[in-house]
Amino acid sequence: MIGELDSLMRKRGIAALLCYGDSTLGNPELAYLTRCELPRGGVYLKKRGDEPLLVVSALDVGSARKGIVKNVKTYNDYGYPELVKRHGRRKAFVELLARIIRESRVRGRVALYGRNEASSVISVFNDLRRKRIALVGEERPTILDIARRTKDDWEIDAIKRAGEKTLNVVRRLEEFLRNLEIREGVATYGGEVVRIGWVKRLIRVWCAEEGLSLPEDHIFAVGPSSADPHEKGVEHEPIREGEPIVFDIFPQDSTGYWFDFTRTYAVGKPSRELLTMFEDVLAAHNEAMDAIREGAPCMEPMQAACRLFKSRGRLTILDLYQGNREAETRGFIHSLGHGIGLTIGEEPYLTLNEKQKLEKNMIATVEPGLYYPEIGGVRLEDVVLISGTKPTILAQHRYELEP
Amino acid sequence: MIGELDSLMRKRGIAALLCYGDSTLGNPELAYLTRCELPRGGVYLKKRGDEPLLVVSALDVGSARKGIVKNVKTYNDYGYPELVKRHGRRKAFVELLARIIRESRVRGRVALYGRNEASSVISVFNDLRRKRIALVGEERPTILDIARRTKDDWEIDAIKRAGEKTLNVVRRLEEFLRNLEIREGVATYGGEVVRIGWVKRLIRVWCAEEGLSLPEDHIFAVGPSSADPHEKGVEHEPIREGEPIVFDIFPQDSTGYWFDFTRTYAVGKPSRELLTMFEDVLAAHNEAMDAIREGAPCMEPMQAACRLFKSRGRLTILDLYQGNREAETRGFIHSLGHGIGLTIGEEPYLTLNEKQKLEKNMIATVEPGLYYPEIGGVRLEDVVLISGTKPTILAQHRYELEP
Repeated sequence: MIGELDSLMRKRGIAALLCYGDSTLGNPELAYLTRCELPRGGVYLKKRGDEPLLVVSALDVGSARKGIVKNVKTYNDYGYPELVKRHGRRKAFVELLARIIRESRVRGRVALYGRNEASSVISVFNDLRRKRIALVGEERPTILDIARRTKDDWEIDAIKRAGEKTLNVVRRLEEFLRNLEIREGVATYGGEVVRIGWVKRLIRVWCAEEGLSLPEDHIFAVGPSSADPHEKGVEHEPIREGEPIVFDIFPQDSTGYWFDFTRTYAVGKPSRELLTMFEDVLAAHNEAMDAIREGAPCMEPMQAACRLFKSRGRLTILDLYQGNREAETRGFIHSLGHGIGLTIGEEPYLTLNEKQKLEKNMIATVEPGLYYPEIGGVRLEDVVLISGTKPTILAQHRYELEP
Repeated sequence: MIGELDSLMRKRGIAALLCYGDSTLGNPELAYLTRCELPRGGVYLKKRGDEPLLVVSALDVGSARKGIVKNVKTYNDYGYPELVKRHGRRKAFVELLARIIRESRVRGRVALYGRNEASSVISVFNDLRRKRIALVGEERPTILDIARRTKDDWEIDAIKRAGEKTLNVVRRLEEFLRNLEIREGVATYGGEVVRIGWVKRLIRVWCAEEGLSLPEDHIFAVGPSSADPHEKGVEHEPIREGEPIVFDIFPQDSTGYWFDFTRTYAVGKPSRELLTMFEDVLAAHNEAMDAIREGAPCMEPMQAACRLFKSRGRLTILDLYQGNREAETRGFIHSLGHGIGLTIGEEPYLTLNEKQKLEKNMIATVEPGLYYPEIGGVRLEDVVLISGTKPTILAQHRYELEP
């Protein structure tokens, strides 16, 4: 939680946090620390025990003031135009950073943050150190990783709201699927064969209507194509009776917070194998949920899901780790889940070998799945809030193959 | 252009390019080098003179093969699971990078690329150097900056297509605006007062229908609010007769390529000042266009626009650079334009002091504007392709205040 910054800085012997970026979009660390939208980015500096400072372009002062940093200054306040004239645009930025750090009278180690091109990070790192500023890159988990992995109330609310909007889209899709008619083994609507590209356009429009954006698109993959967990859906494919439809939607709300949700459907009568896959995935989901509690290592729910799959004769990543490469493409071929927040993949990671403990107010996906190249996939995914001995599902929705 | 990589590497004495990331989304360098979507990212390595290598999760092999790198391997091929067991998840990644570089028998300096958290970049940089791999961060413009700033044909096509889709949205908005009725000084539709939030939802739906996403939203700002060039639009504001409506749309197409387009409208009779502002901005746009040609320094079109504004008694950034801080909020308060491609802000920068020359196949915005806090803003923006003595506008559209 953001209130932990000072105590984490003290524990690690860090005198100041420096974070910069050319936009808050695609820069979750800068977005987290400033809680505003900065289309040209900015420079954030927080001395231990002090209120933070945010320096932005004069154009962005209005946007910056909508955020949580009270002390907003402009590049011009630090004489940036002269720095550009004297050093050129590229070197001027490092000079600006040095000036901001010096005028803030930072004494001690400065940890560097922000998501930026490697060339920029390395030159800032080397050039500031050459200027005798004790810049350091932290080992992961960094102070910010730790702060961000347990969510503040306003973050939980933002993720919940994204979840509610997501469920609105899910319900519209299910209604659409219920209205399909099977003709000669393929789904039709108003007499026409339904192609995946068309459904995907509908989903995008429904998201837009909810104010959700889809920076990474979404997955609506059917039949054998869905055996690749990341296949987004093949434009011209029809929906065949009884084959799996994997619908995985991971929208970003206007707050910057993401959601992540998956259900698997079939229209018409599902095949016997698909039904069994669905039952096994749901059972693994239940086992995993039962293993999620404050204080448990992140690997435990993953291990619980793997045990369940194994007991039903399914391959899992455990088999892959023991050298069976068939488990690269058959069975439970990915991890159980990952944290979400200002990114769609962050701590905690519900993977094998992850010893990090589940903590109160962590938020993570729980998404067991089974995949077979000749059939396709089944995946069921919820987002849960960790708290006490029982996780809370943030967007509750039924689990059924029938839409 | 991507074909320049080898010769640029030779010129700079770089033996290999190393690029990594946790997703191609938000990682334009990785997206450029691989030309595919990798939801979990990957590691790209190119030795000078050799075909590149791409290493991804086993789950992403299908996605990776859709790209331009022929030689695709998996983390498992490099024994990643054992590395995780031996070193833990966080250290294992650096070990993996070291193994990939060593097995590729790279001799010489390796330039590091990719957009990643500073803590990750610094630890990769320090740890690989400790392992005696001669990793370097390049000064900007880097090899990739130079390659990316002149566009390949397929990139020009992708940007053009994004422009065509954008114009479809622009035309729908203009039709909507033409159908508004002024009542008691504010715009209404079907008898109801039109609020900005409603128009913005329509624009989002139209973009979704075109398959365009809006990762940074869009600007539909009216009246005095539009005096802040980055104001996205105030939800509850109505549209008042004769006041400026700044519509700036910067969508990303499914190819990953962006577009950027602005027009300014007024419904009902525009004020005298607004008309003059519009005329001056259009004149500046023309002057700037006349100054754009292969071989001219990037600053020239910006200087031409500033000269025009000055001749009409307007403040510009030149005044700010000469110490007049009124020019922070009044007049032509931003630069003329910027490159677009896999990002919405990249080289070339059409700013004062930018000596870089315009080159054939660069693509940039041309977007002069005028802003006054009590009136609002006027901005006209096109995307142009630099070629010969006359730039080509990639999405041609009329310039009129009346929608």
